[in-house]
Amino acid sequence: MPSSLPMFTITPPADDLQAALRHKIDRKTKPQGALGALETLAMQIGRIQNSLTPQLCQAQLLVFAGDHGAAKAGVSAYPQEVSWQMVENFLAGGAAINVFCRQNGLGLSVVDAGVAHEFGPRPGLIDAKIAWGTANYLESDAMSADQCAQALTRGADIVRGLARGGCNVLGLGEMGIGNTAAASLITHCLTGVPLADCVGRGTGLDDAGLARKQALLAQALGRYRAARGDDAPLSVLAAFGGFEIAMLAGAMLAAAEAGMVLLIDGFIVTSALLVAAQMAPAVRDYCVFCHHSAEPGHQAQLAALQAQPLLDLGLRLGEGSGAALAYPLVQAAVNFLNDMASFDAAGVNGEKCGEKCAEKAEEKAGEKQL
Amino acid sequence: MPSSLPMFTITPPADDLQAALRHKIDRKTKPQGALGALETLAMQIGRIQNSLTPQLCQAQLLVFAGDHGAAKAGVSAYPQEVSWQMVENFLAGGAAINVFCRQNGLGLSVVDAGVAHEFGPRPGLIDAKIAWGTANYLESDAMSADQCAQALTRGADIVRGLARGGCNVLGLGEMGIGNTAAASLITHCLTGVPLADCVGRGTGLDDAGLARKQALLAQALGRYRAARGDDAPLSVLAAFGGFEIAMLAGAMLAAAEAGMVLLIDGFIVTSALLVAAQMAPAVRDYCVFCHHSAEPGHQAQLAALQAQPLLDLGLRLGEGSGAALAYPLVQAAVNFLNDMASFDAAGVNGEKCGEKCAEKAEEKAGEKQL
Repeated sequence: MPSSLPMFTITPPADDLQAALRHKIDRKTKPQGALGALETLAMQIGRIQNSLTPQLCQAQLLVFAGDHGAAKAGVSAYPQEVSWQMVENFLAGGAAINVFCRQNGLGLSVVDAGVAHEFGPRPGLIDAKIAWGTANYLESDAMSADQCAQALTRGADIVRGLARGGCNVLGLGEMGIGNTAAASLITHCLTGVPLADCVGRGTGLDDAGLARKQALLAQALGRYRAARGDDAPLSVLAAFGGFEIAMLAGAMLAAAEAGMVLLIDGFIVTSALLVAAQMAPAVRDYCVFCHHSAEPGHQAQLAALQAQPLLDLGLRLGEGSGAALAYPLVQAAVNFLNDMASFDAAGVNGEKCGEKCAEKAEEKAGEKQL
Repeated sequence: MPSSLPMFTITPPADDLQAALRHKIDRKTKPQGALGALETLAMQIGRIQNSLTPQLCQAQLLVFAGDHGAAKAGVSAYPQEVSWQMVENFLAGGAAINVFCRQNGLGLSVVDAGVAHEFGPRPGLIDAKIAWGTANYLESDAMSADQCAQALTRGADIVRGLARGGCNVLGLGEMGIGNTAAASLITHCLTGVPLADCVGRGTGLDDAGLARKQALLAQALGRYRAARGDDAPLSVLAAFGGFEIAMLAGAMLAAAEAGMVLLIDGFIVTSALLVAAQMAPAVRDYCVFCHHSAEPGHQAQLAALQAQPLLDLGLRLGEGSGAALAYPLVQAAVNFLNDMASFDAAGVNGEKCGEKCAEKAEEKAGEKQL
């Protein structure tokens, strides 16, 4: 391992308030459990912040963008230049993630993790470029161990800056032509699920394109195994990249260390989480799984992480769009915990009548028969 | 049928813009279909408003509240007075639906459709009371045909008032101890699904309570059949009530007539929709199915209406909570349609390279082998 690998101290959220949170939720003016997944979410966020009155502050979404050497081999339906063109679209405010962040009150920044393009200094763009795209993993590892460590460090540093500014809820997204292919390889290596089950159509390959992608990824995996590649998370990450995925992993580790609520998007972001969670399992406790992607490999990731996403809308866009769309549900969990009245405060009878009602009804029926 | 039954003219949304909407969505800077259910929703709302730039105006949520004569027979886990106590909670702003409407920018009004309580004039409360609760359907029909027609009319009138005020998106909710039982009976009669599969725990019955509810509802159904009750939607509605369900059906019909987008909540609201859709099938085209309730009979309703809800969070609260929680997704569908850049406008290459990329990659591979 390179000497420059960043260090993280991530502890699981405290258990102190678990019973008090449960009690507070159960005294709200609603049947117990009636808010379903929102109750689980309120418990989780209360534990993360170790508070009965958690707050979501300075919600921010980061889109990490990077290019992939393997993109030119034909693993994507779109040409590589779409990566930088979409970054320009983000900066101009015209992409889906811009629309959804504006609507739902999340700040948005784009991180150039390694796009094969010169942007120059631009408002809304954080320059953290490691290189002009990764190497082609069909021929060699996508990045060196040093580049991988650098990417983790830069991702972490960006998030530490946000934490200092008061942000405690962070959405994560990505952009990079070819990055579902990288995510498939990482997912296979870190979950053990057969490669074929981790590969999908990405941005929209047809059947022939999908078959070609499958073959290319099997070839990439063969090269890695032949070079004695192991299944250690950082080896896999360096082998298949991309820089945006490595930076996402670093960002997640720093965010969990800072006690942030992490909004996890779809297939590519979750591949970074597989890396982060194998480095520090407690990172998972800080994650809200925002949506179930239509990309088939996402299922293997969710199973490995024992995760139940909030939304299942057949999205397969990336950018963090699922995270931004789910954010109002996260707010709703916090808001009901803070703002709903309790049975006592509202003067609502919170006692089930149950048997009592049944007995009374039977008595009444008996009277009628007399 | 009573002479006072309100009339509705509901036509299916226009098809004129279908192709233009599809084209507009497909030229947005995203892979085709990548926004999943939001694309379907954008198409639907564009068609409802017959516009390529639909707008959501004066979003409003109505909670219809009513009491059920059968509640005293023990069909619910909670005593009947919780209905009016919860109405007070709505008026004081402390219920889940208040929290979610405030968060997501929906106006909220409560309609007294037939609560067994005197509220007096109150801000935020619309007095449309038909009676102090329905009759007990174990003994007779829950309401007369005239009461049923009145309830439909009052529900319709409230919505027509909102339409005149510029509201074009309407969330629907309900409150009434015992109303999952009424919804179960209606669902059985209007879908043909066995009664046992339409009955659930409501606000939280235990196993004994559920068995009791099953037995009571079978008895109510037996009484109705013995009295030659048929499966016409208005007969079923009058037989099993409640007033809030009848008023919801009238509200839906008027809303569809006015071309509103209708946000359909869970099990009880959908039972009203079964009635409305049998009276005027086109009403269904105006409905956004907001969430999949944990109440088991909801599945039968969704299947009958061929509906795919947006959320599946294990909610079973009612009040319109699922509708309010899903509203940001409805806004997101409209916002991406209006505000996302097209490939052309953003200067993003929207052409898949597909075969071209693959050929180029193969040429390159060939060159290397030379």
